[in-house]
Amino acid sequence: MKEKPTRREKLTQIPPDIAAVNDYEKLAKHFISHPHFEYIAGGSANEITLKNNQKAFDDIGLYNRVLQDVSQGSTELTLFGEQYRHPIFLAPVAHQQLAHPDGELASAAAAEAMEAGFIASTLSSTTLEQIANTTRYRKWFQLYFQDTKAFTLSLIKRAEKAGYSALVVTLDVPINGLRNRAQRANFTLPQEVREANLEGKPSPTQRQLNRTQSIIFQGIMKDAPTWQDLEWLQQQTNLPIIIKGILHPADAARVKEMGFAGLVVSNHGGRALDGVPASITALPFIRHRVGAEFPILLDSGVRRGADIFKAIAYGANAVLIGRPQMYALAVAGALGVAHMLRLLREELEVTMALTGCSTLQEINTECTFTQPQ
Amino acid sequence: MKEKPTRREKLTQIPPDIAAVNDYEKLAKHFISHPHFEYIAGGSANEITLKNNQKAFDDIGLYNRVLQDVSQGSTELTLFGEQYRHPIFLAPVAHQQLAHPDGELASAAAAEAMEAGFIASTLSSTTLEQIANTTRYRKWFQLYFQDTKAFTLSLIKRAEKAGYSALVVTLDVPINGLRNRAQRANFTLPQEVREANLEGKPSPTQRQLNRTQSIIFQGIMKDAPTWQDLEWLQQQTNLPIIIKGILHPADAARVKEMGFAGLVVSNHGGRALDGVPASITALPFIRHRVGAEFPILLDSGVRRGADIFKAIAYGANAVLIGRPQMYALAVAGALGVAHMLRLLREELEVTMALTGCSTLQEINTECTFTQPQ
Amino acid sequence: MKEKPTRREKLTQIPPDIAAVNDYEKLAKHFISHPHFEYIAGGSANEITLKNNQKAFDDIGLYNRVLQDVSQGSTELTLFGEQYRHPIFLAPVAHQQLAHPDGELASAAAAEAMEAGFIASTLSSTTLEQIANTTRYRKWFQLYFQDTKAFTLSLIKRAEKAGYSALVVTLDVPINGLRNRAQRANFTLPQEVREANLEGKPSPTQRQLNRTQSIIFQGIMKDAPTWQDLEWLQQQTNLPIIIKGILHPADAARVKEMGFAGLVVSNHGGRALDGVPASITALPFIRHRVGAEFPILLDSGVRRGADIFKAIAYGANAVLIGRPQMYALAVAGALGVAHMLRLLREELEVTMALTGCSTLQEINTECTFTQPQ
Amino acid sequence: MKEKPTRREKLTQIPPDIAAVNDYEKLAKHFISHPHFEYIAGGSANEITLKNNQKAFDDIGLYNRVLQDVSQGSTELTLFGEQYRHPIFLAPVAHQQLAHPDGELASAAAAEAMEAGFIASTLSSTTLEQIANTTRYRKWFQLYFQDTKAFTLSLIKRAEKAGYSALVVTLDVPINGLRNRAQRANFTLPQEVREANLEGKPSPTQRQLNRTQSIIFQGIMKDAPTWQDLEWLQQQTNLPIIIKGILHPADAARVKEMGFAGLVVSNHGGRALDGVPASITALPFIRHRVGAEFPILLDSGVRRGADIFKAIAYGANAVLIGRPQMYALAVAGALGVAHMLRLLREELEVTMALTGCSTLQEINTECTFTQPQ
Repeated sequence: MKEKPTRREKLTQIPPDIAAVNDYEKLAKHFISHPHFEYIAGGSANEITLKNNQKAFDDIGLYNRVLQDVSQGSTELTLFGEQYRHPIFLAPVAHQQLAHPDGELASAAAAEAMEAGFIASTLSSTTLEQIANTTRYRKWFQLYFQDTKAFTLSLIKRAEKAGYSALVVTLDVPINGLRNRAQRANFTLPQEVREANLEGKPSPTQRQLNRTQSIIFQGIMKDAPTWQDLEWLQQQTNLPIIIKGILHPADAARVKEMGFAGLVVSNHGGRALDGVPASITALPFIRHRVGAEFPILLDSGVRRGADIFKAIAYGANAVLIGRPQMYALAVAGALGVAHMLRLLREELEVTMALTGCSTLQEINTECTFTQPQ
Repeated sequence: MKEKPTRREKLTQIPPDIAAVNDYEKLAKHFISHPHFEYIAGGSANEITLKNNQKAFDDIGLYNRVLQDVSQGSTELTLFGEQYRHPIFLAPVAHQQLAHPDGELASAAAAEAMEAGFIASTLSSTTLEQIANTTRYRKWFQLYFQDTKAFTLSLIKRAEKAGYSALVVTLDVPINGLRNRAQRANFTLPQEVREANLEGKPSPTQRQLNRTQSIIFQGIMKDAPTWQDLEWLQQQTNLPIIIKGILHPADAARVKEMGFAGLVVSNHGGRALDGVPASITALPFIRHRVGAEFPILLDSGVRRGADIFKAIAYGANAVLIGRPQMYALAVAGALGVAHMLRLLREELEVTMALTGCSTLQEINTECTFTQPQ
Repeated sequence: MKEKPTRREKLTQIPPDIAAVNDYEKLAKHFISHPHFEYIAGGSANEITLKNNQKAFDDIGLYNRVLQDVSQGSTELTLFGEQYRHPIFLAPVAHQQLAHPDGELASAAAAEAMEAGFIASTLSSTTLEQIANTTRYRKWFQLYFQDTKAFTLSLIKRAEKAGYSALVVTLDVPINGLRNRAQRANFTLPQEVREANLEGKPSPTQRQLNRTQSIIFQGIMKDAPTWQDLEWLQQQTNLPIIIKGILHPADAARVKEMGFAGLVVSNHGGRALDGVPASITALPFIRHRVGAEFPILLDSGVRRGADIFKAIAYGANAVLIGRPQMYALAVAGALGVAHMLRLLREELEVTMALTGCSTLQEINTECTFTQPQ
Repeated sequence: MKEKPTRREKLTQIPPDIAAVNDYEKLAKHFISHPHFEYIAGGSANEITLKNNQKAFDDIGLYNRVLQDVSQGSTELTLFGEQYRHPIFLAPVAHQQLAHPDGELASAAAAEAMEAGFIASTLSSTTLEQIANTTRYRKWFQLYFQDTKAFTLSLIKRAEKAGYSALVVTLDVPINGLRNRAQRANFTLPQEVREANLEGKPSPTQRQLNRTQSIIFQGIMKDAPTWQDLEWLQQQTNLPIIIKGILHPADAARVKEMGFAGLVVSNHGGRALDGVPASITALPFIRHRVGAEFPILLDSGVRRGADIFKAIAYGANAVLIGRPQMYALAVAGALGVAHMLRLLREELEVTMALTGCSTLQEINTECTFTQPQ
């Protein structure tokens, strides 16, 4: 009963009371089972970072400006040599069939319809090839290091072959955060939701630990990637590589020095280490450290076009949308995801119009202030 | 059912438990339909600015002073060459028949009874001429730029002819804020509530957008006024022009330099861009920028006579009352609006008496302090 | 029904679940009618000051110290030449028969039992002479200026004759604060609760106001006392005069310069002007201004022995207890008030013991810190 | 009925929804009577310190670091010349049979199973000898000064004989804090829960107080230990002595100067003086005062492995776990306590892994930041 994946029938048109992205979150719990919702919505441990991700956006104020001519306005940008209509990407969310039987195929179709870049997850519930076949628009592949270099390499080669134009390497969960909410809801991945890319993956080495050894340090972390592994990765592909999960300026600096294409300031939506800074809080320190030209994307907490505006003001080139993708998928499939993206685009444009910014380049910290507490 | 405009019968006398302005808000929801209430009460997006408008007033503390002789006290002021008994105006709230069948006529009558200035909205539900006929007291006309200069000019000429003594030009909503609360309540303007001044207005040009163009930038904002349009406006009338919707000191400075009569620090009651400063937070920066003599009015968040006192301490000459007008109208028509104004006047006088200020000129920031958080 | 003054029977012994002063507040609402409770418990307007009175105490932290020898400890003090066992007085709360038929006679008896000074209110529901006859312990008389000097003087002379040893002149409510909570509960003083001291008082002059005059400024405040009246008062008696209701350092300085005996830092329990500082917030600025030797008492917000400790650390010589007197009276009459006083005394002693302070003189700001927010 | 010690049957295996230490608190109330729960969970007075103990941990942010090699990681430490697998001790919680019939014997067994140090309380419900017989792992004895030196000495000698390897002398409750929550729940120690170590203790001297004397100062505090008594204690044993209940840096400095082995920064879980700093707030000031080498332990508020990490970053060598021990005991006896300890250990290791710290020595304030409010 608890595992029944949907309750209400997926919507086939968008009712007028879905007026903002967070309305999808409120609705989503009626469209998927409780454990699935808890897995998606939950953060780690005390959910301090999860809450701060949105609070920190709200704590940034904006100044409206009157009578500015924005009739030539546009949200265009160039990233890694490609032109984008707007700075909104779908984040590489795993296991999308938890939200909807069409899973990643629906999200990728919605992304194409809204001209949003799509980032396919290593842990997608359909194969990266199937996803690639669905969409002719820009698509990147998100990579988790695998137990063996051979298998990691096979994923890279498949992504190259399938036409992905960049790799996004996620580094902030070598071990999962404490997903207590999911645990309390007794969440397990249902059998029908596959980790489609990982089929045929070799079984992990069974490690024998003696009683003074730790399953964390000498167990799981034994297999975690290091900076050396990242260097190895650089040799394996000509695709631009973007490093995801950076919050500390020193890590950002090292990523830049090593010659990577860009990075994603992210705390994994508050699902990795609890207590780390909100992404938007970490962002300006990182932008300051890597300089004005290095491409920075941001995720975690973006729920409004105004949040995208704030992220750009604080130094991001573009943003990734994670959970709202799953909520919209749960409620109304591809249609929901497309609508959710349209809401964000329009809100971003309204925010630019009312602040008098015609282009993303004009958005900067002078448009903002810190709300009094 | 949902659209039935009233539920309880309008009150014909004021019960003792309406002791303060906000009591009208609590009551109003029982006198008008839910969508109408949501339209009136709602702010934009996350309603951060809406909440801050009142919180920012509460965060300003006051010092009482003992044994001051205020027996010669008065709340009089001179504004644009005219004498006022007190610094309270009714703000140009649109569509007042949403609250009461008598709409603006009731509000204007109440304003006259309480010697409060009345500002008629471009979007009034009775014509500006009807309103002008109702009241012999001070009245101003609030102007939204129209699609064509000809129609804008016709409104100005009608206002002049009808005896309005100033124009208030609202600039902060060239495009509406994200009125999510109204959207979620499925609010639409009911047919019986007309935009009476706009009848006969030419249909807007149908603009053909290609697929790379934005309905925000190349659509709606194409028609938005610019500083050049404001210069044009200046040539069309000898009435004093007051610019409404200013929050940024640079915009205030430009308004002053262009020779306008005054400005209104306002965030449109939190209904325009969400996240902008509370009006009272923005006010001192603007007063500092334009100097001591330039007339500044303020709206957004005034719910207490003490709030008026704080606005004056921070640099305002007078204040405008928006939503409470609609709530009082909804509950008890003209009687309610008059009573609401009387509450504010008396509270202002009590505040002056207890702080030892005999005149508005004596009110300054030394009467205030910032509450510890 | 609503006016039925009591509901539960007054308690004749104290149950173990009354463990702290605020427990009396929670209980009191079951022992008196709703309007009476609202009148007693309510503050003015938005109740910002009411809330801050307790929050500001809670925001002051304390340091415990270990192994201090306090076996010679005592809470004794000397005030206006008299010795007190502890620094706790009962504040001059008006209309005490609202809480209990025995009213001030019960409170005064409890004060004597607990060796607490008692301050009888001008607005007591039994005469100052009856109160004086009840208690052989220290008693002061609280004076409100009356419409005529003659009647004011008659009150002073009666107080002298009845054996009161000091006058406390309250100055912070020349006009009442906005007692909205009491208004909303439709509170009126019931006929059986008399203003016993004011019987025979001459009817106030009927003042004719023209329509440009204000009932606040030219009406009520016309009769309010001024600094000149305070000078007059000084000539009428040899009793020490203590000025109550001071929050601004400049007012405190003037009181001291005029030669008064002391002052009470008070915001009338948040019932006068809303938004003024919490008493404990105002206290250190006043102590700094008047120097170390001038007697300062404090009321408003004291609910714990630790609050008394903090008041003394911040510069008070003693404190007055207002509302808890009424709550305890409502619940259990004289027994309740005595128990409430005992709780405060013991809590003060425990706080001194755990902070290692043997005497009130040892209590200072080094025992405190500001809690992080 | 109210005194019935358990409601649900103790669990014999740990269900998956106990995912974090605080889950034991939520469950515990169903396993013990309300008064017992209130006694255990309650803090003193307004519970400001109780709340701050956890809030202050939450207000410390952490930085994750990517790609660090922690495969050699370990949580080992050396303390007082002994090697420990991890820095987690069970605090000396009194009266453990309130939570479970097996009381301290269960906790001590769980501690041994998880290689956690156990600190037996003077107020244990089984004798220190019984406890000592249960466990072969590290155990310390917590000492309260008794009315007579002879009896105090007899406890020390019994502890030495029973094989305890250190004394922990608690100093912050010479008089109990105001345990209002326990009082309101009418808590009393049930007859079947003995103070087993104190049987045969001489009856306390009956002290006759005259009416000007205080039962606090001249009564209870007459028997409280002083610095001289602490010197005496130093002469009686060769065991390392650790002083518990220190918050003020000056007290910490004196403890160090006197030559004690170490100290415990503690506010007795918010049960002693209310308003004192959270332990973690006090810690860095104390570490700064005593220098880098002096052993410091910390308790009060530790509920997460991340809290342990933060305590170590701020200067602690190890932490003590108080209430969670009782909650876990209440829910599932020894099994619960062991599981609770395992959760903390694993969370600490995960936190170290994600912050890139291989050893406790690498944990410092650079791993942390102060969360914006």
